[in-house]
Amino acid sequence: MASEETERAPLLSQPSDLDYRTNLPRFATRFGSTRYRPHAVSQNGTVAADLQAMEDDANIINEHRETYIEDPEATSAAKEYTRIQEDMLLNVKYKSLDYDPCENEIFLKEEAPKGFSHILKQQVARWGVMFLIGVLTGAVAGIIDIVIEELCSQKYMLIKIYIDRCVQVENDCLIVPLLLFCALNAAGVLIAACLVVFVSPCAAGSGIPQIKCYLNGVLIPEVVRIKTLIAKAVGVMFSVVGGLAVGKEGPMIHSGAVIAAGISQGKSATFNFDLGVLEYFRSDHEKRDFVSGGAAAGVAAAFGAPVGGVLFSLEEGASFWNQALTWRILFASMTATFTLNLILSAFHGVPWSLSYPGLISFGAFDQDHSLNYNGLEIPIFLLMGCFGGLTGGLFNHINYKLSIHRIRHIYRKRNKIMEALVVAIVTAASAYLLIYLSHDCESLGKDPTNHPVQMFCKDGEYNVAASLFLQTPEDSVRSLFHDITGTYQAFTLALFAIQYFLLATWTYGLQVPSGLFIPLLLTGAAWGRLVGIGLSNALNDYATWMPIYPGKYALIGAAAQLGGVVRMTISLTVILMEATGSVTFGLPIMLVLMCSKWVGDLFNEGIYDIHVQLAGVPFLNWEAPPSTYDVPARRVMSHPVVTLLEVEKVEKIQQVLSKYPHDGFPIVDNYIPDLDDSPTFGRFRGMILRSQLLVLLKSKSFSSNEQRAPQLSLRDFRESYPRYIPIEKIDIAEEDLQKTVDLGPYMNKGSYTVSDKASLPRIFKMFRGLGLRHVVVVDSDRKVVGMVTRSDLARYRVEFSKGKLHFIELQLSTNHPTDT
Amino acid sequence: MASEETERAPLLSQPSDLDYRTNLPRFATRFGSTRYRPHAVSQNGTVAADLQAMEDDANIINEHRETYIEDPEATSAAKEYTRIQEDMLLNVKYKSLDYDPCENEIFLKEEAPKGFSHILKQQVARWGVMFLIGVLTGAVAGIIDIVIEELCSQKYMLIKIYIDRCVQVENDCLIVPLLLFCALNAAGVLIAACLVVFVSPCAAGSGIPQIKCYLNGVLIPEVVRIKTLIAKAVGVMFSVVGGLAVGKEGPMIHSGAVIAAGISQGKSATFNFDLGVLEYFRSDHEKRDFVSGGAAAGVAAAFGAPVGGVLFSLEEGASFWNQALTWRILFASMTATFTLNLILSAFHGVPWSLSYPGLISFGAFDQDHSLNYNGLEIPIFLLMGCFGGLTGGLFNHINYKLSIHRIRHIYRKRNKIMEALVVAIVTAASAYLLIYLSHDCESLGKDPTNHPVQMFCKDGEYNVAASLFLQTPEDSVRSLFHDITGTYQAFTLALFAIQYFLLATWTYGLQVPSGLFIPLLLTGAAWGRLVGIGLSNALNDYATWMPIYPGKYALIGAAAQLGGVVRMTISLTVILMEATGSVTFGLPIMLVLMCSKWVGDLFNEGIYDIHVQLAGVPFLNWEAPPSTYDVPARRVMSHPVVTLLEVEKVEKIQQVLSKYPHDGFPIVDNYIPDLDDSPTFGRFRGMILRSQLLVLLKSKSFSSNEQRAPQLSLRDFRESYPRYIPIEKIDIAEEDLQKTVDLGPYMNKGSYTVSDKASLPRIFKMFRGLGLRHVVVVDSDRKVVGMVTRSDLARYRVEFSKGKLHFIELQLSTNHPTDT
Repeated sequence: MASEETERAPLLSQPSDLDYRTNLPRFATRFGSTRYRPHAVSQNGTVAADLQAMEDDANIINEHRETYIEDPEATSAAKEYTRIQEDMLLNVKYKSLDYDPCENEIFLKEEAPKGFSHILKQQVARWGVMFLIGVLTGAVAGIIDIVIEELCSQKYMLIKIYIDRCVQVENDCLIVPLLLFCALNAAGVLIAACLVVFVSPCAAGSGIPQIKCYLNGVLIPEVVRIKTLIAKAVGVMFSVVGGLAVGKEGPMIHSGAVIAAGISQGKSATFNFDLGVLEYFRSDHEKRDFVSGGAAAGVAAAFGAPVGGVLFSLEEGASFWNQALTWRILFASMTATFTLNLILSAFHGVPWSLSYPGLISFGAFDQDHSLNYNGLEIPIFLLMGCFGGLTGGLFNHINYKLSIHRIRHIYRKRNKIMEALVVAIVTAASAYLLIYLSHDCESLGKDPTNHPVQMFCKDGEYNVAASLFLQTPEDSVRSLFHDITGTYQAFTLALFAIQYFLLATWTYGLQVPSGLFIPLLLTGAAWGRLVGIGLSNALNDYATWMPIYPGKYALIGAAAQLGGVVRMTISLTVILMEATGSVTFGLPIMLVLMCSKWVGDLFNEGIYDIHVQLAGVPFLNWEAPPSTYDVPARRVMSHPVVTLLEVEKVEKIQQVLSKYPHDGFPIVDNYIPDLDDSPTFGRFRGMILRSQLLVLLKSKSFSSNEQRAPQLSLRDFRESYPRYIPIEKIDIAEEDLQKTVDLGPYMNKGSYTVSDKASLPRIFKMFRGLGLRHVVVVDSDRKVVGMVTRSDLARYRVEFSKGKLHFIELQLSTNHPTDT
Repeated sequence: MASEETERAPLLSQPSDLDYRTNLPRFATRFGSTRYRPHAVSQNGTVAADLQAMEDDANIINEHRETYIEDPEATSAAKEYTRIQEDMLLNVKYKSLDYDPCENEIFLKEEAPKGFSHILKQQVARWGVMFLIGVLTGAVAGIIDIVIEELCSQKYMLIKIYIDRCVQVENDCLIVPLLLFCALNAAGVLIAACLVVFVSPCAAGSGIPQIKCYLNGVLIPEVVRIKTLIAKAVGVMFSVVGGLAVGKEGPMIHSGAVIAAGISQGKSATFNFDLGVLEYFRSDHEKRDFVSGGAAAGVAAAFGAPVGGVLFSLEEGASFWNQALTWRILFASMTATFTLNLILSAFHGVPWSLSYPGLISFGAFDQDHSLNYNGLEIPIFLLMGCFGGLTGGLFNHINYKLSIHRIRHIYRKRNKIMEALVVAIVTAASAYLLIYLSHDCESLGKDPTNHPVQMFCKDGEYNVAASLFLQTPEDSVRSLFHDITGTYQAFTLALFAIQYFLLATWTYGLQVPSGLFIPLLLTGAAWGRLVGIGLSNALNDYATWMPIYPGKYALIGAAAQLGGVVRMTISLTVILMEATGSVTFGLPIMLVLMCSKWVGDLFNEGIYDIHVQLAGVPFLNWEAPPSTYDVPARRVMSHPVVTLLEVEKVEKIQQVLSKYPHDGFPIVDNYIPDLDDSPTFGRFRGMILRSQLLVLLKSKSFSSNEQRAPQLSLRDFRESYPRYIPIEKIDIAEEDLQKTVDLGPYMNKGSYTVSDKASLPRIFKMFRGLGLRHVVVVDSDRKVVGMVTRSDLARYRVEFSKGKLHFIELQLSTNHPTDT
């Protein structure tokens, strides 16, 4: 299929990130485990001879290399990877972001003389941008909420009218509202799926895994593009209106991140415009800071939890805590909460009352004192936490198997859309079935719901199951938390919980924007309330001193289910604390989250981590795997290393760039090949990035014998940003090939090096603590012996599964199952 | 005075932290700015000759060196420093903590084979210790609160009875309650001051600056000793009971930190016992993690703000955010809040109602809806923030001048105690005067206070000023927040605010444990309520649609005043948010804190920073001063460097340790002095710490020609911890002097190096990101050219004062004004 090829193309055309490692099994790539010849680079030889010598080296280690680099799909060797478990592969094609500024001569020359007034201006701009991020994120959240509210209201009203009419006039036309329900849902989901599949595939799912990766330092293509925002924001409206078991909260986090990236850069790749402002923020490092703020603002708007938002950003992103940055992030979060509050209050006709802090609020628990708890209840909470961990583990397992099935079989565009439609129709049909079969009736007076459906209930009563389905999931969560004791029958809740659990499992991973928080909260609230009802029946006769409020147990169940699936820790605790508005109830929530995480971790990882792993993203964990002090740098590093001299011929640079996909090249002294077989690649001078070389070639800043090249400015490197330009697209005239390029002023002299004896934990700490994308491994003479990149570290992983810790080493692959 | 000498001795006997820098003005210490001879160390010469050569080098650069190192007090040169502004000195005697593990051979050999079961055991122990920290911190907070509550109640009751009797029987004996008031206060303060002065001088003040420094990586002697805890906890009870303008919240943070340090180490230096458990936590790094948890638990217990506590620890301490650690910290905070809540609820006769989350709670605002705000009120809040910044700047300025006065003139023990007594008596007398002069009477029914004093009011009324003074400051804060409109007369509030402001300024810095939060909140609440009353009078007739609740303005004023003085940002916002229990009101609080900080920063720094500076602590800020990219490593580094060879004679080690106070020594290759005058000190191999050398000498692990020394284990280094042992105390037999010590297995091979061209921001980032205490500067051949230590970085500072940024470089001093 031609269209499938086009879809795959952007991924494959990217050069892989600093991949100095070859794709052979690990024993062959270990330093010293195979005897190999050092670079036989002749200083006086031709460029071709130089390259030939380098290549010979590489070939001794890895004869298969070329096949992977040149055409990964064509080789039969590639197919063998499908036999390896999909999450044991690391896709080396993901690029790292540069969180460490390149300190080259021109940087130092341009940065040093900048006065304090410039710094002040930059500071003011930082606050201004954060303010805008908060306002826009809040506004987008408000618009999404209002649109969903209105459309859903229309939809539910229509269905209610049809059901009521069919039941009342008893013409047995109940098939009509069913068809209507299915058709309305399918229509919504179709729009959402088309937006994702045709406009921005990156907008699928909750976006939290993508933002995690971005903040971690991995560039996921198109993740912060405006078209992704549009697909995400509009798509999530329609997937919620389409009645899927999805929430709109996760996508808000992604939306906030895109807004932040767009505003802070003052330009858009989607619309191809450039305001020409805020150039000083055009670095990966600055952009990351703003994206942290945007993600936090998204959480703040979604849950009315500004502090939870800050902690989310820190938990997922910060390797280096910065006080000033954190304060700005909190400011963005606060602004987003405030803006959303203002918009929703105004929309609901109570301007300035500021009673709508987030898209989902759990409502005020404190006033009826149902959130006080007795010490004897804590063991029950803990057991519920464990149950949440168990069901969460099950959820993740089913979803993992489903995801692998999707990777293998559902990769065509029309199949992806078909699957979404099937889920939409099944969701509607099963909901309708539950409503149809349910005989759980409540009197209308007791519990106000917006669209009470009478169905087969007596006059003055309404169908409780219908009230769960015929309102937005957020309203259903609140109903389960706050409806008075006795509203729900146990049987209805049990059926609902199982049904929604399965639907949510199936839905996550569809090609629609889909938040996971709300379906999980709803499932957990249902079984939590069930527990509350059970306890209430069992105990209230005996222990009148300990009244059981089912709503409180619904909250605990919701926390347990959510914690068991996503396994987030501190930020989730704070988000739930802020959403419930109770400091006192923070401890039970935290205990429940701890239990559910620990029990769930016995079986598998959190759902976001599973999806990150399935994508083969080289994600860096917080710390090195334990007990890896005996793994020295020379064991994890990639080599041989392609090095350049400070002054190189244009021809050689061009050929190196075409031949090697690496993202950076160490620059070394003019060195003589060692006679004693020591495998080094020259004494380290500095580091130059592929993107910098591309700018140099593109701007033709070549020196010939007659004249030296004009020196480029920092601006030239910031503006062109040629990360995606393939070297083939750069035209170099025949007569320029013999000219030279002076790399000296552009190489990063401050680039970090590490001794070849340094341990894995130490290198890990450097990467996380300093935000590095690579580090050069040198021997005691500062001669380059290898490079450690993000992929080299991400390959080592520990999994705590079935009560045991496993130390695993991932395979590297350029041909990854998720590509297909 | 002999006793003064003893007091000073511990400080002076410490070796200074890695002070490779000499104490000359900067131009002389700049690399290359003065021509100097390289180390003329003869490889075959005697130890004495070696040392002589090193010394010659040093003398060329710095002829004054000896005078400072040997006897800083005796020289006349030292006196010149008193002419330098006190906060422009950096005391090089503070030692750095080791937050980077020493990766030497024995570490790698012992750590690598540790299995996953050991890691699991350690993890469980970590959680258990954090739990204990939380429980004990909560318990200590509870005990302090109950004791203060009871003693204060007795005291106020006694005074009330005396006043009432005097007024009622009209025998004009009002001098009696005044004397009683003064005597009771003086007695309390005397106990507090004696505890501080005689037991633990480190327990003075709030302890927040000390904990800031500790978490930042500076070892303040005795800061986490149990005797400090006792002096602090008992002292703060009596300073509050003594009626000083102090709170008990700041000291709780310090108490939590001490508890954490004590429990995690399983031993006590004060009581000289050692449980022999948890040895694996006996490193600065692990201890720091637990102390972070303890400080957070302290904040959580003090303010009922577990999340605020976590953020406090992160804001003050974390250079490296770690998800797992943060979660444990939150657990400790939650446990502390829960424990305190449990204890106080039980004490107040409502067990399990859990309605006392913190020592200070602002009470529930939400229920009377007074915390809703109108958009038009925001400008007023901002103006109040600015006013808080102004008065905060004034507070800091006065307190700064007072502190300098104290450093210069009040350094004898009896004077310190006398000053505390004077303040206690003035506080009591002025309070009494205000009560006496006040004619602000309220009817008893309107506002319940525990000890209503009638004074000259009519029957059925009470004196409002007396109610402010005759209850604990916490209760007064709550009264100002919640008392109904019309309770206070403007004149009473104005007088009270001014009086309390001045008293608080005078009190902070006394030799008693004294929290600063409560007096500032009280001052701010007083003038904030004044603003509210003013607005209410001015507006309520015209704008009935915008009712003004003075209690809300009291809260804003309290935030503004506190923010203007302490200038904390994110943690303070969250602490106040949690203490008020309102997410909606977070934005105004944050805006007010921003304004007060920015306005205050125009004049001076936060009060804690001022005190840190006055102590000359080499405190590392978050980032390097801006615009310092043109400051390379070779300009900031210390040199010459005292280096050792891998195998050294005992005699040389002993002499080096006695002669140089440095805390660490690079180990270099056997090198030949360069002939080309290049000022290097051998090729870098690794780093060895003074404490390690001391252990080696003490354990006599010497090799002679006949036998090699037995290798020590990691445990030997952990257990002895000889940071304070002076080299003179270690006996070395005459015959051992010619033996050798093999330093190879003990040196840190993973020690970080940096190129001599690296910029200041880059080195700064390494220090903060990796938790370093020093970094070795090497040239392109990995030859040692210098060392950068914490002091070298802390010397460069930027101050934003009077609207302008100033770049300043501090003087280094071993003879610091705070020593006297």
